[in-house]
Amino acid sequence: MQKGQMLYEGKAKKIFRTDDENIYWVVYKDDATAFNGAKKGQVANKGLLNNKISSLFFKMLKKEGIDNHFIENISENEQLIKKVEIINVEVVVRNVATGSLVKRLGFTEGEELSEPIVEFYYKNDALNDPFINEDHIKILKLADPGQVQQMREQGLRVNTVLKRFMEQLGIILVDFKLEFGVDSEGKVLLADEISPDTCRFWDIKTQEKLDKDRFRQDLGGVEEAYQEILKRLEAKI
Amino acid sequence: MQKGQMLYEGKAKKIFRTDDENIYWVVYKDDATAFNGAKKGQVANKGLLNNKISSLFFKMLKKEGIDNHFIENISENEQLIKKVEIINVEVVVRNVATGSLVKRLGFTEGEELSEPIVEFYYKNDALNDPFINEDHIKILKLADPGQVQQMREQGLRVNTVLKRFMEQLGIILVDFKLEFGVDSEGKVLLADEISPDTCRFWDIKTQEKLDKDRFRQDLGGVEEAYQEILKRLEAKI
Repeated sequence: MQKGQMLYEGKAKKIFRTDDENIYWVVYKDDATAFNGAKKGQVANKGLLNNKISSLFFKMLKKEGIDNHFIENISENEQLIKKVEIINVEVVVRNVATGSLVKRLGFTEGEELSEPIVEFYYKNDALNDPFINEDHIKILKLADPGQVQQMREQGLRVNTVLKRFMEQLGIILVDFKLEFGVDSEGKVLLADEISPDTCRFWDIKTQEKLDKDRFRQDLGGVEEAYQEILKRLEAKI
Repeated sequence: MQKGQMLYEGKAKKIFRTDDENIYWVVYKDDATAFNGAKKGQVANKGLLNNKISSLFFKMLKKEGIDNHFIENISENEQLIKKVEIINVEVVVRNVATGSLVKRLGFTEGEELSEPIVEFYYKNDALNDPFINEDHIKILKLADPGQVQQMREQGLRVNTVLKRFMEQLGIILVDFKLEFGVDSEGKVLLADEISPDTCRFWDIKTQEKLDKDRFRQDLGGVEEAYQEILKRLEAKI
């Protein structure tokens, strides 16, 4: 497999073509950003850690019947993925109230939700990824209602599997963000990454944050938290 | 009918009990507020104008098969309504992009939408009436999914009827906010008011704003705009 032209450089990853038109080559970077790029930094080994963590999650989900774009790891910070056209909707699933549920909607920090909440955000840096609903998605032609339904259902399935899995590692899955793409056959396929950059993980016993909030909130020990997630994953899998 | 104890004083109306436990007495005030009360003022005759306008809309909607809480006018700025328990969800229906669709989601000001957009807001002054989705409504126990579906359907029906009706008056129905309540039989009933305080009306020929945006944006001629709406309504009905 040959790495070809770079197609896209995002805040945390670079995507390259390969000599197979249906396969892309992803390089995970050590760059860390928050608040839509307003805060920038580097986290030592983040590319390596997120590449490994994301791969383990994607393999586990595949085994559990949730297909996704992951093909295989090719180096410590690189993986091959199925080519998809990314849907510009971020799907957030929440189990515990924190972040905007507390600030915007008056929930109590740390309150367990009686059912998961699914939210859609318009993936648009210029607009700061605003919260939207299904009518906006339709009128903005981001996805059709059938695709929205599939993203919602897959989001909830990932939540069921991932929440139970993380509990076995002594970790609360507070909330997470997924992205989906449309593959060459028109199927809505789970894509992007699943890592401490895109999930909130709290230690069940200590409530310690083991995710990007350590970077956002200057809590220190960012690399160590990501290492801890990888360590518990590798011990289990 | 006797006016009883005041139950509630809102930004634009006061609600009193009557000697019939299923009927409330509403007094429309001349107070004008915007931006969740941050901007305050008075508009001469607003109470009278909105009472008349809202009554005409409610009667027209009733004739068109859309039931609502309106019973009858009892003075120039007072009306009797059916008692309902207000659902703390504001239902916004949009036909033309302005306001938050432009600021938050990048729509072009004045762009006609290919289909109406329905949005839900959490009616909560302390939180500044935040935009929410159906999952939030469920978890916050503001309404059950069946009630949400009914509010959405009734909102779209009001839109169809009101949009066509206003076009005959030479007015574009840009967007509007509805509130619903649950009546003594558990039915979801259209409530609150429908007026230039709660709708955006633009003159079809001149694009002139004939609604509360004149107050919000200090355009002057607020009373005259509300008078113009009433004049066209009375000429038609």
